[in-house]
Amino acid sequence: NSFHTFRESMLYSNDSFFLVSTSIIIFLMACGFAFLEAGSVRSKNTTNILFKNLLDTCISSICYFICGWAFAFGTNGNAFCGFGQFLLIDFDPLLFPSWFFHFAFAATASTIVSGALAERCEFYAYISYCVVLTGFVFPTITHWAWQKDGWLANGPEGIKFKDFAGSGVVHLHGGTTALIGAICLGPRIGRYEDDETGTPAVPMKGHSTPFAALGGFLLMFGFFAFNGGSQSTIDTPGDAQTIGRALTSTMLSGAWAAITVLILNKMFVGKKWSLLMSINGVLVGMVSACSGCDAYEPWACSVVGIGSGLSYLLVLKMVEVLRIDDPLDAAAVHFGGGLWGLMISPIMMNEGIIFVANRRAFLQLGWNCVGALAIIGWSLSLMGSLFLILRLLGLLRVPEEVELKGLDLYKHGEAAYPLVAYGHGWDDPADQ
Amino acid sequence: NSFHTFRESMLYSNDSFFLVSTSIIIFLMACGFAFLEAGSVRSKNTTNILFKNLLDTCISSICYFICGWAFAFGTNGNAFCGFGQFLLIDFDPLLFPSWFFHFAFAATASTIVSGALAERCEFYAYISYCVVLTGFVFPTITHWAWQKDGWLANGPEGIKFKDFAGSGVVHLHGGTTALIGAICLGPRIGRYEDDETGTPAVPMKGHSTPFAALGGFLLMFGFFAFNGGSQSTIDTPGDAQTIGRALTSTMLSGAWAAITVLILNKMFVGKKWSLLMSINGVLVGMVSACSGCDAYEPWACSVVGIGSGLSYLLVLKMVEVLRIDDPLDAAAVHFGGGLWGLMISPIMMNEGIIFVANRRAFLQLGWNCVGALAIIGWSLSLMGSLFLILRLLGLLRVPEEVELKGLDLYKHGEAAYPLVAYGHGWDDPADQ
Amino acid sequence: NSFHTFRESMLYSNDSFFLVSTSIIIFLMACGFAFLEAGSVRSKNTTNILFKNLLDTCISSICYFICGWAFAFGTNGNAFCGFGQFLLIDFDPLLFPSWFFHFAFAATASTIVSGALAERCEFYAYISYCVVLTGFVFPTITHWAWQKDGWLANGPEGIKFKDFAGSGVVHLHGGTTALIGAICLGPRIGRYEDDETGTPAVPMKGHSTPFAALGGFLLMFGFFAFNGGSQSTIDTPGDAQTIGRALTSTMLSGAWAAITVLILNKMFVGKKWSLLMSINGVLVGMVSACSGCDAYEPWACSVVGIGSGLSYLLVLKMVEVLRIDDPLDAAAVHFGGGLWGLMISPIMMNEGIIFVANRRAFLQLGWNCVGALAIIGWSLSLMGSLFLILRLLGLLRVPEEVELKGLDLYKHGEAAYPLVAYGHGWDDPADQ
Repeated sequence: NSFHTFRESMLYSNDSFFLVSTSIIIFLMACGFAFLEAGSVRSKNTTNILFKNLLDTCISSICYFICGWAFAFGTNGNAFCGFGQFLLIDFDPLLFPSWFFHFAFAATASTIVSGALAERCEFYAYISYCVVLTGFVFPTITHWAWQKDGWLANGPEGIKFKDFAGSGVVHLHGGTTALIGAICLGPRIGRYEDDETGTPAVPMKGHSTPFAALGGFLLMFGFFAFNGGSQSTIDTPGDAQTIGRALTSTMLSGAWAAITVLILNKMFVGKKWSLLMSINGVLVGMVSACSGCDAYEPWACSVVGIGSGLSYLLVLKMVEVLRIDDPLDAAAVHFGGGLWGLMISPIMMNEGIIFVANRRAFLQLGWNCVGALAIIGWSLSLMGSLFLILRLLGLLRVPEEVELKGLDLYKHGEAAYPLVAYGHGWDDPADQ
Repeated sequence: NSFHTFRESMLYSNDSFFLVSTSIIIFLMACGFAFLEAGSVRSKNTTNILFKNLLDTCISSICYFICGWAFAFGTNGNAFCGFGQFLLIDFDPLLFPSWFFHFAFAATASTIVSGALAERCEFYAYISYCVVLTGFVFPTITHWAWQKDGWLANGPEGIKFKDFAGSGVVHLHGGTTALIGAICLGPRIGRYEDDETGTPAVPMKGHSTPFAALGGFLLMFGFFAFNGGSQSTIDTPGDAQTIGRALTSTMLSGAWAAITVLILNKMFVGKKWSLLMSINGVLVGMVSACSGCDAYEPWACSVVGIGSGLSYLLVLKMVEVLRIDDPLDAAAVHFGGGLWGLMISPIMMNEGIIFVANRRAFLQLGWNCVGALAIIGWSLSLMGSLFLILRLLGLLRVPEEVELKGLDLYKHGEAAYPLVAYGHGWDDPADQ
Repeated sequence: NSFHTFRESMLYSNDSFFLVSTSIIIFLMACGFAFLEAGSVRSKNTTNILFKNLLDTCISSICYFICGWAFAFGTNGNAFCGFGQFLLIDFDPLLFPSWFFHFAFAATASTIVSGALAERCEFYAYISYCVVLTGFVFPTITHWAWQKDGWLANGPEGIKFKDFAGSGVVHLHGGTTALIGAICLGPRIGRYEDDETGTPAVPMKGHSTPFAALGGFLLMFGFFAFNGGSQSTIDTPGDAQTIGRALTSTMLSGAWAAITVLILNKMFVGKKWSLLMSINGVLVGMVSACSGCDAYEPWACSVVGIGSGLSYLLVLKMVEVLRIDDPLDAAAVHFGGGLWGLMISPIMMNEGIIFVANRRAFLQLGWNCVGALAIIGWSLSLMGSLFLILRLLGLLRVPEEVELKGLDLYKHGEAAYPLVAYGHGWDDPADQ
């Protein structure tokens, strides 16, 4: 009896410890995105993008407290959404570690979008989509896929939507929102050649490669917690090996994707060894790994990773051809990588199609397609409507003058690198 | 019997694991402070401030090894301080995880101060206060509040000082020291208008907003470990949910505070959406959360956070009016936020005054006031005396020429960004 | 019975949790090295060094998957190396957490080298040594020392090679490789005075002290996981206190080393308070702590740390005299510190020579010398041969023009700080 009590207590305690420690690391992905984005924009918009990423975490937490949790995991739910524990009233305190974990996911989903809208998005527009996304749209998707009465978790013949860590729930959703946001906003002034006047495109490079790399490393760091933590328990038999496998798959998939992007870019696209493309390569590989990283053999990650690298380059090309301006390639990384992840996991995972090409395995693939379409459709319709409304109201994009001169001084009064703060008074050049 | 042995072993092991892993993350707060401060000073003093933050961790560890632990948790103590295990001789090896945890706290307390003294403090002065603070002053305060025979932990009628993670012990102490240090040092040359000559104030902006943001994110990351880890055990029933609650409170309180500061600053003070103020807003909210984050309902965090934002703005205004120069707003964040945290926790926490307005609840508030006064008085008298002695000896402040020309080259021979290290030899402007 | 099952399950689960969480933090050392190196090179080679550090992690993971694990811990091994589970086929899924942990070590070993070769190493040369090191040379050394049938783990009279966290296995190996690499490459153009023409040396400062400091802090953060995690289990009685002791030793040893280097440099070498030397001081102290950090009394760390500081300065001087160019002082930190760590641990550790000067204690010292010589010899012969072959093939070093003009634009087409990305359009100087 004493043993039974002890066992229950230990399981809850250690599982919570696991949730909490992975959540804290996942939280740092906000910093990772902030610096990936800050490094990829021009110096005149750096304060602005850092500001948005910082506020993301704040607004997400408040929205997830007010109604996000309620729609995702609140009591009295149905197949579509939860509906209870608004404001965390009547909330079971045993679930606090879970709340924090899922908040960290919501903050990540929201912060994916800011990159695609960088350098031209109006402040109130940003607040609006952040509130809607973390307060309603993302929570409902998590409910569909990850709550036991969600409709995606209850497919035909007992099939469940296969999305272990959120290739679909987090990244496809975030990537779709980023894409529709970038489309509604339109490209930055001068990003593409002007067909009418013939004014050529202006180079729009990020202002700090080291910051982009810092962001990339922090995101890799966070991805291990993101993908490992998605097991959400550590002490049930089988958990620990699954988590180890998830980390291994995440790293290998990221590595194969980076090398794929690196080599193909060198051969066919940029003709040089691009660091920035390699960073996106690692990230897209890890995004694709999310869906099935708990169930891949290590060798199978080569297929997942190489394919994700290809899907990244493909979406990148499409975005370019369609003259969409996505300064961070968020659509290519998260939409391309997320979609590929959902498609490949039913094929390459243990008991997947290449191992057992039976009805059940194909059904799994089909159900993942259904889930992908549902997520894309839901994100497009709700977030797209929001962006369109904002556009019609003239609240989506900053005035032309502000865009050209930069958002930092106008909106925030804070230059990223104020000139007055530089220089010193010593003369000896040998010291400098 | 075997079960009993196993249980004891597991409890110790897992609790130690929890302590150790949170300590490691708390340690990174040193990096967070370093970059918050580096971003907030001018480029000519950047190496200097990074140097101080790095040395902080080193000096703290040695002082905490020599006598800090002895005064805080050493055997043979009384209500005022411990007195044993100097140099960690006769130290119980089972306590190594605890030592490392408390060292991480001491390093954090010490590093709070360096921001307020930035850009003008003499090297030996800095060494002196770091030694005194981590070797004696901070350890005694932790003894009062967190050791079971400390006088603050044994209030009237069984009341204990309510300071779960150190709004008072760490932040009010650090903030008071920062304030008295900034007062003794005096403002940087040109920081305020010169009344005699009428020379106007010189703008003193930090040189890198991204570094300040990096520091802010790393501090948020660290705060979760700081406030969660303060439970110090994970496997006793109730621990895990308390830790989850502490994290939730910390995030929500930080978010409400950031939004409060952001909006009030936009409306009444700077008239723009300030990133730097928002960062301080998040931090002050988290500082205030320390005291009672284990015992707040989520909705109560709105009161804690909004109030901490107000207290930050209030202290900021007072510091400005009194012409004190605190380049990092350390006093406003840590003194203002810490004091508010101690005052609000007996009111808003579960079983606090708004829930049960009984004698015991008011006694708790009174005892927290006593504790706050004791911490302020102790820090002011000891650290203030030290700063005054250093000032009288002429060791507190660098010579005027060094201050004007910058400390980096003169003291360290290392510019933050040596000009000779920049530039390249390629001509094609399209590549740049 | 149920209890027995539960106990086994808990031990495996929690030990895996410990392995996985320390691995994730160790992984961030790649970011630490990246920024220590990026800050220490000139701006024209910054993208290049970040690129190499990012690819390091990718290539390491693939090589460690293909054959690294097989040679290190694969089944069917002998005293020299493992030989099984290539491509992780027939891999026991219970070992996934171990794989990820050892991969993180391999990535760290590999990334040590890149600093010494900075600013002039050819891309294919870098790929080659990374593949050989993480695919074969490092794995065999780990097999010798850390696999139970390795020859170093089975010394005479039951003595084992004393290298808890890898002063020898990781750092001496990495430092030796860095040294021979720097020798084979030769110094950067202008690094030393030209004896023939008399052209004086050119100052070669790193371009960003803050980045170097960021790298230093992240490496300290990682070292705690590296040295604590080397216990590899948390729940066996004795584990937790050993881990706590390891962290304490690591911090104290780093602190003593930093202060030693700082003071000696101020008195005898650079005459100023050098931040960059202090960072290397902390790191060399932590490197030296690796070998015996599980078995030092806290006071003994002063000897370990002070000695490591001296060994750093000594190797630094030798490298300078021999006109070897090691831009990151990787040889001084990792070779000097690693060798000192191996020599001092049999002396200062509990049951070491200063406590019990018996035959067994001296045998331990002797065996550590044997191990050190073996690691140096193995690294020199294999990695040295590789560098020589690459040199003979003309693949080791970039062309002179590329070196002078910088690698970033030529190789990567990505400047670290593209000029076109800077500036804004606002006029009011007060805003800047």
